[in-house]
Amino acid sequence: MRQIYLDNAATTKMSPAAIQALLPCLDQVYGNPSSLHSPGQRASEALSHARERIARQFNCTPRELTFTSGGSEADNQAIRSAALLGARQGKRHIISTAFEHHAVLHTLDRLEREGFAVTLLDVHENGLIQPEQVAQAIREDTCLVTVMYANNEIGTIQPVAEIGAICRERGVLFHTDAVQAAGHLPIDVQGQNIDLLSLSAHKFHGPKGVGALYVRKGVPLTSLIEGGAQERGKRAGTENIPGIVAMAAALDEACGRMEENAAKVSALRDRLIAGLANIPHSILNGDPTRRLPGNVSFCFEGIEGESLLLLLDDKGVYASSGSACTSGSLDPSHVLLAIGRPHEIAHGSLRLTLSEETSQEDVDYTVEAVTQVVSYLRSMSPVWRDLETGKQSFVIQ
Amino acid sequence: MRQIYLDNAATTKMSPAAIQALLPCLDQVYGNPSSLHSPGQRASEALSHARERIARQFNCTPRELTFTSGGSEADNQAIRSAALLGARQGKRHIISTAFEHHAVLHTLDRLEREGFAVTLLDVHENGLIQPEQVAQAIREDTCLVTVMYANNEIGTIQPVAEIGAICRERGVLFHTDAVQAAGHLPIDVQGQNIDLLSLSAHKFHGPKGVGALYVRKGVPLTSLIEGGAQERGKRAGTENIPGIVAMAAALDEACGRMEENAAKVSALRDRLIAGLANIPHSILNGDPTRRLPGNVSFCFEGIEGESLLLLLDDKGVYASSGSACTSGSLDPSHVLLAIGRPHEIAHGSLRLTLSEETSQEDVDYTVEAVTQVVSYLRSMSPVWRDLETGKQSFVIQ
Repeated sequence: MRQIYLDNAATTKMSPAAIQALLPCLDQVYGNPSSLHSPGQRASEALSHARERIARQFNCTPRELTFTSGGSEADNQAIRSAALLGARQGKRHIISTAFEHHAVLHTLDRLEREGFAVTLLDVHENGLIQPEQVAQAIREDTCLVTVMYANNEIGTIQPVAEIGAICRERGVLFHTDAVQAAGHLPIDVQGQNIDLLSLSAHKFHGPKGVGALYVRKGVPLTSLIEGGAQERGKRAGTENIPGIVAMAAALDEACGRMEENAAKVSALRDRLIAGLANIPHSILNGDPTRRLPGNVSFCFEGIEGESLLLLLDDKGVYASSGSACTSGSLDPSHVLLAIGRPHEIAHGSLRLTLSEETSQEDVDYTVEAVTQVVSYLRSMSPVWRDLETGKQSFVIQ
Repeated sequence: MRQIYLDNAATTKMSPAAIQALLPCLDQVYGNPSSLHSPGQRASEALSHARERIARQFNCTPRELTFTSGGSEADNQAIRSAALLGARQGKRHIISTAFEHHAVLHTLDRLEREGFAVTLLDVHENGLIQPEQVAQAIREDTCLVTVMYANNEIGTIQPVAEIGAICRERGVLFHTDAVQAAGHLPIDVQGQNIDLLSLSAHKFHGPKGVGALYVRKGVPLTSLIEGGAQERGKRAGTENIPGIVAMAAALDEACGRMEENAAKVSALRDRLIAGLANIPHSILNGDPTRRLPGNVSFCFEGIEGESLLLLLDDKGVYASSGSACTSGSLDPSHVLLAIGRPHEIAHGSLRLTLSEETSQEDVDYTVEAVTQVVSYLRSMSPVWRDLETGKQSFVIQ
């Protein structure tokens, strides 16, 4: 059976280049980079080299990067650091959006319990924030704006540079969760006025368990994990050298082929969108063009997302209803609710996220599989019969 | 040139078994365990299986394990969780020792700034804590006792079960940093009355960047990293499946061969100790027998530790002056000061930590190398000439 992995926003397969970079760090360059001896110094050099490579891709200095265990840790540390700085100046207001990743939203929840005020900007139906919304929401006591670079469920790409410019002008720190963007979209922290940026290696064919936090020079970071003096005292714990070295290799590869990959993948994405749009009473989530090259997100009326996933799985199509991080929850996606989807529509969501390995045949097979499964599920559904017989009315025209 | 890695307390080389376990998780079992589809479920099964294997080694249930990015994160989360629980009951006193790892001590520093009182027990000259010290220090408002299982610099093994029994009887939570112990010493969280225990995979031939926190059922954990619902909502972030699976393999291997390894390694340790004790004005740090099988720690009077390390490095002997996590610091080891070594003696420290791969030839070569280098450094040292000519008196007889 054909097996088509279309859940690259949840996690990716490591690339051969990343694996090749990782392997020698397991049993050859295995020293502790804090050790003075030669094996330690070789590890330290590998760490420095990886840091330089990553810094180059984001137009920052190596010293502005702190390695973490992943995107969630980086988000937590960025936001808590900025909040602490704000609190010291009596500024306890933070601006974000209603459809951030939970690593951001739950950190903000905790800060609210600690006395911070949080404004969550409304997201337009197309999944985009307008820079003016940020400008209008900034108050005298705003210490941080945190807006994700690209959404993990519906793939929409926010006007990060414009938001950053507003923040810079108003003297407010700007953090962006770039977990879905890094390796897929160009990032230039200088040009885009970004003060703090989070990323995760396993979203661009790097390893799980490693990420990074960019923090602009002059912005003091607070440790989330206390202990040894690693990462200039800002993140304790022996550095994950294999993970960091492999992340650098994966990022170099992803950035080196970014244009080519984006062109290929977005063409497939558009083909997939066009195919699925033919399913009656379906609706694309997010902006048709201002979205990640690999992101396709649909809602199908009268469908329960979990059944859809399981039947697609039987056909070898591996998809998601939304974020993997919140699966297991029966609540509909907060992202889809944020863009105005009613509960019953949000329940029928399907996220398909492509990679460079996806082929046109995969896309065509997937269109056929989804079309069949949606049709089958609707044929089994009393709700759908009510819709078709006019006892209820369709929401998606 | 012979190359002898004697810094296994800083980090270890991954074992072939751990590498073999890791590899398929990079590009085969690469799904996100939160995903409902088959690749996600295969990853979820690998995660469960690893959790079961690890739980079995510590005599706990799989649900009592939370995977972290390493020992430092586990220490931070354990201590902060216990402190928060204590604060809710008006209990803001914590007992620890003066020679814990910085992941513990710096977390305690932060809690002190937040209004907690911390009692650091004195460590005896042999590097051991007496259970009675803990009993005497417990107050009405004590919420936590945190004492490391085995010291990372001098290798001494604390009477964990006895301390745990006292804490259990007095209704105080007991945490032990078992980063140096796991995989090297028997751990039975039930039998040893342990409520919280931290460990790190790269200290027992597992990968860097992954660890675990055992928390006894009924003790609520607080998230250090907020976000997705991974690890029953207690630790957000996509699980590091390759790391966790490799950790389980490394632990199984280490525990399976524990007796045999301990017998072999401690015999080599004793041979190394005997050899180095022949160097004049040298002193063994820590208890001669109640120490980790692989740990040798000495102070040499009139010697500067860093020079010693660099000259040993030239001879292919890779050693440490103390903890790798604090190298780069010019301060003498807080551990050696805690056991009463004067500053000038603590500066001349050498830690040699063996593994199962260390041979008798390695040990004999190392004794010769250290003897030569100490002698050479002393011949170059004006301080030493003052000692020999009686202008200053020896501290170590």
